[in-house]
Amino acid sequence: MEEKRDIPKDCAQGGFIDIFKEGGHDALTQEHVKRGLYGAIFSRRDVRGQFTKELVGEDVIARVLLAAHHAPSVGFMQPWNFIVIRSEELRKAIKESFTRANDAACTMFHPDKRGLYANLKLEGIMESPLNICVTCDKTRFGPVVIGRTSNPAMDEYSVVCAVENLWLAARSEGLGVGWVSILDNMDLKSILALPDSVEPIAYLCIGHVSGFFPNPELEIVGWLKRLELDGLVYTEKWGNGCEQAWPELYQQIRKGMQRVSSPAPTTEVR
Amino acid sequence: MEEKRDIPKDCAQGGFIDIFKEGGHDALTQEHVKRGLYGAIFSRRDVRGQFTKELVGEDVIARVLLAAHHAPSVGFMQPWNFIVIRSEELRKAIKESFTRANDAACTMFHPDKRGLYANLKLEGIMESPLNICVTCDKTRFGPVVIGRTSNPAMDEYSVVCAVENLWLAARSEGLGVGWVSILDNMDLKSILALPDSVEPIAYLCIGHVSGFFPNPELEIVGWLKRLELDGLVYTEKWGNGCEQAWPELYQQIRKGMQRVSSPAPTTEVR
Repeated sequence: MEEKRDIPKDCAQGGFIDIFKEGGHDALTQEHVKRGLYGAIFSRRDVRGQFTKELVGEDVIARVLLAAHHAPSVGFMQPWNFIVIRSEELRKAIKESFTRANDAACTMFHPDKRGLYANLKLEGIMESPLNICVTCDKTRFGPVVIGRTSNPAMDEYSVVCAVENLWLAARSEGLGVGWVSILDNMDLKSILALPDSVEPIAYLCIGHVSGFFPNPELEIVGWLKRLELDGLVYTEKWGNGCEQAWPELYQQIRKGMQRVSSPAPTTEVR
Repeated sequence: MEEKRDIPKDCAQGGFIDIFKEGGHDALTQEHVKRGLYGAIFSRRDVRGQFTKELVGEDVIARVLLAAHHAPSVGFMQPWNFIVIRSEELRKAIKESFTRANDAACTMFHPDKRGLYANLKLEGIMESPLNICVTCDKTRFGPVVIGRTSNPAMDEYSVVCAVENLWLAARSEGLGVGWVSILDNMDLKSILALPDSVEPIAYLCIGHVSGFFPNPELEIVGWLKRLELDGLVYTEKWGNGCEQAWPELYQQIRKGMQRVSSPAPTTEVR
C-alpha cells in the first residue's frame, strides 16, 4: 500500500493564481480560465510572414518568459535558458544558417512538391523584432535527475513544454511566434556561444503581427489537412478505435471538432 | 528579397476563437484570454497523490484531447495519437513496469538522497480514473517532413507541445495531470501494442483532485528550489546577463517573479 500524501487543507479549493489582480478581490473563476485558455490554444498560429516592426514591451517579454519558466520540468530541474536576441548581426548569421539548411532540405522533397516548398515562407528571423533561443542544460543539478532515469530526453521535453507555454502566453498578449526548426544546431551553438553541455531546443521569432490566420498556413496553402481527431484516439490499446469501444467519447470528440472548425466570428481588440 | 504573404483582410483583427459561445455575441477580449491563460499556467501542477475516484466526463475528455490536437506540429504533420486507458489490468501491468524502473532509479542517487527519493510519490497510475498515453508516429505523411529535415526530434517535440496543451486544458477544467516518466518504453510498447514506428512520448494520469498544491511538490518537500528567472535569461549570447545588458527587461522580470510568488488569495470553485 502506498503512502498517501495529503494536500494541506488551505490548498484544497482549486483556485487559480491571478497575477493581474492584487489582493484577490476579483478571483478568477473556472469558467473564466477555461474560456481564456481554450481561446489561446485554438487561436495560436505559427507565424512567419505577418510580423510588424513594432517593438515588444519589456513587461510583455517578462511575462511570456515567466510563463515559460512555470512549465513542468522533470524532477523540477528547470533545464532551460532563454537567450533574447535583438542584434541584427547575429540574426543575419542565423538567417544564413537557415538558408543553407533550407536549400539542402528542398532537395529532399519529391520533385512534384519542390516548387510549392520553395515558395513557402518558413521563418521571420529578420522581420520580427525579437528572437529567442530556448536551450536545455543537460548537466543542471548533476547527472542524476528524478524522472530522467529511464528516458534521457525528458529534459528536452521539459524545455519544449516551456516553449509551448511561451507561445500561448504570447498569443494571449496578441503577439505572433514562429518556431524556426530548419537550422543546423552546430551553427546555433557556435553563433550563440553555447557551452558543450547546452543544446538549443527552439529558435523562436516573436513580435506584433498584422493579424492571425484563421487556420494553420500549411493547411491554407494545401500542403496538408488537419486530421480528424476521432481517428487518432484509441481505447486501451493501439488500433482500438473509440467509435466502437467508447461511443460517448467518440460523439463528444465529433461535437468538439465541429465547434472548433466553425468558430463564432470574432471582433477583437488589442 | 522574400515574397511577403499577406494575411487575408478578414483575418487581420486578431480575435480569439471561443468554443463556448455560439454566434460570437460575447466575443473573447484579450484581457479575458490573458488572465485566463496565465491563471492556468501559474496554477498547473504535476499531480500524483491527490486523485479522487470521480469519473471524468466524456465532454471534458474530448475538450482536453481537442486542445492537444491543436498544438503546433512540425510541417503540420500532427504525429500524435492518444490511447485512453481505463482497464485496471493494463494499468496494473504499467504500474509493475514503473515499480521496476523506479527501484532501479533509486540506486542511481547518492546514498544521502535515497531515503527522500524512496518516500516521494511519483505516479498515480492506479489512483487516477483515466490514463492517457500520447505517442509519436515518426512515419506519418512519409519520410520527409517540412521542418524535420535538420532535427529529427522535431516530431517528438510537437507531441510534447500537445501534452502541454492537454495539461493546461485539464487544469482549466479543474483536473489534475501527472506525467509518469519513470517507465521503460519497451514495456509500454509491448503492453499497449504500439507498432515499431510509434514511440510513446508521455504517459499521463488524469482525474479530479482533492486540491492543488500552491507550489510544485518537489519544491515543498525541499528537493529543489525554483530558480530565479533573471539568472536564466541571457542577451544576444550565452552568459551575457540581462541585468547589465537590458536593465529594463531585468526589472520587469524581477517584478513578474514577485507577483507569481506572492499571489492573491483565491477562493474558487469547481
